[in-house]
This record gives sequence, structure tokens and C-alpha cells, in this order.
Amino acid sequence: MSIVAVVLKTVEKIGVLNGITDKLYEKNYNIIYTHLFVENNQGRIYMELMGVDDFDKLLEDISNTPNVISVEPSATLDEIYGKRVIIVGDGKLMADTLRGGIMEAQMHNTHGETISVDGMIIGGGSQIQEAVTSMDKLPRIHALVLSGSMMGGLITEEIIKLKKENPSIKVIALEMLGDLDNVVDLVINDPVQAGIMAVKLVSENVSYDEDIKDNTFLEKE
Amino acid sequence: MSIVAVVLKTVEKIGVLNGITDKLYEKNYNIIYTHLFVENNQGRIYMELMGVDDFDKLLEDISNTPNVISVEPSATLDEIYGKRVIIVGDGKLMADTLRGGIMEAQMHNTHGETISVDGMIIGGGSQIQEAVTSMDKLPRIHALVLSGSMMGGLITEEIIKLKKENPSIKVIALEMLGDLDNVVDLVINDPVQAGIMAVKLVSENVSYDEDIKDNTFLEKE
Repeated sequence: MSIVAVVLKTVEKIGVLNGITDKLYEKNYNIIYTHLFVENNQGRIYMELMGVDDFDKLLEDISNTPNVISVEPSATLDEIYGKRVIIVGDGKLMADTLRGGIMEAQMHNTHGETISVDGMIIGGGSQIQEAVTSMDKLPRIHALVLSGSMMGGLITEEIIKLKKENPSIKVIALEMLGDLDNVVDLVINDPVQAGIMAVKLVSENVSYDEDIKDNTFLEKE
Repeated sequence: MSIVAVVLKTVEKIGVLNGITDKLYEKNYNIIYTHLFVENNQGRIYMELMGVDDFDKLLEDISNTPNVISVEPSATLDEIYGKRVIIVGDGKLMADTLRGGIMEAQMHNTHGETISVDGMIIGGGSQIQEAVTSMDKLPRIHALVLSGSMMGGLITEEIIKLKKENPSIKVIALEMLGDLDNVVDLVINDPVQAGIMAVKLVSENVSYDEDIKDNTFLEKE
């Protein structure tokens, strides 16, 4: 069934989200994505729903809910961002990796895909660990690139956990000190190339051998 | 009052979020941030709450809610990401702007701030408009950099709207074709410098003259 998206503004007080989910539950809509935050003393809610036969009726149902100031149709996040590649690291290495990822993604996007590349700047080891853990909170991540020069220990453990919970996420790391290279999918020397490869890995237009560590990439015809 | 954060895994079916918000409303907790998505046929919910006196009691309340598989304490997003600078654009210009932003942010982060820099790759005019509109859905954005070579018309209108709703967001654009330069806070020729300036603008350690278009930046002593 197709996914629809709406953006709401609400009064900011206790129970507002509950009032809205009460209404949506009553109407048998399935909330598959919600992003709620408070800005300028108003609640802002972005929601994606399934099970909506009549979109106008949905808008009407929501606008008749107490504390809802406005509701508008929206593009879905998948339409806007597509597949996500996240690059974690800092300094020149990370900037280079982002550069590679962006240039490659643009080429794919020109040919009809939607791939986005985000950077997460991290100062040091324990923060990187925190960031990797938080990956689990972010949806639609298809690849993660660790673009730093010294990672291991706790980070290695977090990557093992992440891969266990989300086997489909591709994890790429630069060649670096530490024991990380044993647990990631791919180790790449050049930081720009690491970004390029991350995008190739999530693209629908590039296929690769089952044993990814062989580094054998075959462009589809 | 302080903010606490939790991460939940739930069964994926209609009404689960409603069950949780029922419980939180009953206990008089205020939900100030929610991020819910579905992955591997499970619901994942990240929530930030205010009004929580007893964190262990909160964990207990949530874990006793139907359909909740697990609940764990988490760092808040503000602790992980801090202030956000978003760079929208594509190609070499955007890669350069990101490079400037990342290198500058790292310098600030080393000195105790937390500033993150994200890139949003956009193919063309109408998509940029969509992305700017979606800014409104993203919380904690402090600065937006438009790093492309041809923007105007609809995008200009979206920026006027964005600035009206969120006057505190700093908007920077490269010098480009179109009428965008009349509505942004700052026009910068060099793409790397645009990224650097975006981070300086949101930093607590750099102050600037009231009339930002004077381009007079004064480092605090």
C-alpha cells in the first residue's frame, strides 16, 4: 500500500501527540514514521502513514483534532532523501570522503537514483562510539563510512553489534590503526575513494561479487 | 527542567505509538521530541522527555507498556549533534562548502562546542525548493548554506517563507545567477569560505555586527 506524508503544527503542551495518535488509531491508520520536535513554542510533527484510502479525509480528521493548528500534505522523506550514506569522522580525511561521496552520488542522481550523503563530525573515540550507536536511531541508512585515522576497541564492538542488528548496512573504513578492519565490509586506503565506493555499494546500478572483500566491482550493463 | 532520552524497540502494528503516548500522558511526562521509524519489521522509537523526576520509574513505566520489546537510556540528540549547519547544493561547489564547514566545525568542537555539518545533495531547482521546505521539518538547524550556481524564483520565495517562520536561521548563499542574494543573510563568493562562515555564524565564540551584510566578523576575546 502506498505511503502518504503530512506536516502538522500544534500547540505545545502535554498530551498533544497522544490526542493525535488516539484519532489516527481510531481511524485505523498505521503510523510508520513520526518526527516530532518543538520549535518557536509550537509542536511540529512530520508523519508518514499507511492504510490511507482517502487523503482529504485524513487531512480533515487531523485538522479536527484538538490542539492541531495546521496540517499540510508533504513529500515523503524517501522521495526527498532517498538512500542515505553516512560518513563519520573528522578533519581532512572526512572532508575528502564526503567529497568523493557527493560527487559520486550526484552522478547517480543525475541518472534517476536518489542517494544522499551526510557527514557526522566526531572528535574522538568515545564520541565515535556514541555516534555509531545512534546510527541505530536513524532510518534508511544504507552505508556507513568510518573516515578517521585511529579507531578500534569499543568502536569495533559497536560495529559488530550494528552489523548484527542491521546486516544490510554496508560499513566501510579507511585503513587505520586498530582492529576495525576485521569487522567492516570493506577497507579502503584512499579517503576520496572510500566515499565513492560507499555510494557505489548502495546504488542500484552497480553490482558486486558476493564476497565484497574481493573488491571486485562490476558495473551493470 | 532537564531533558532525558530513551530508545525503544516495539512490535510493528497499528496503535503501538498510541499505547505509549497514552501511558506517558497518564504519567504527565511531556514528549518534546519523537523519532519513530520501522526497520526489520520492528518499530524503533527515540524520544526525549521533560518532567521526568525518576528516570528508573520512566523506564519501568515504558517497559510495562504493551508491545514494547525493549527500552534503553540514550544520550540526547543535542549532546550528540549539537548545533546543525545544513549545506544544500551539488557538485564541486557543495563539496568545497562542506569541506570548509567541516574543517571549521572541527576547530570549534575541539574547543568545547558541538557543531555538526550535514550536506543535502540536490539535483535541480524544484528539488532544491522541496529541500528548503523540508528544512522546516528538521529541528535544531542553525544555518543553511545554498551552494549551487543557479538559484532563484521559487527558491527565493521559499527562503523568504523560511526566514519569516524561523528568523534565527542564518542563510548563506554563494554569489550566483538569480535573485536569491537579496533575501539571504550573507552572500559569499568562495564556496569553501561559505562553509567556514556558516559555522562561524552559529558558533558561540564568534560575534558579528548586527548588520550581518557588513561582513564584519569580530572574534571574541
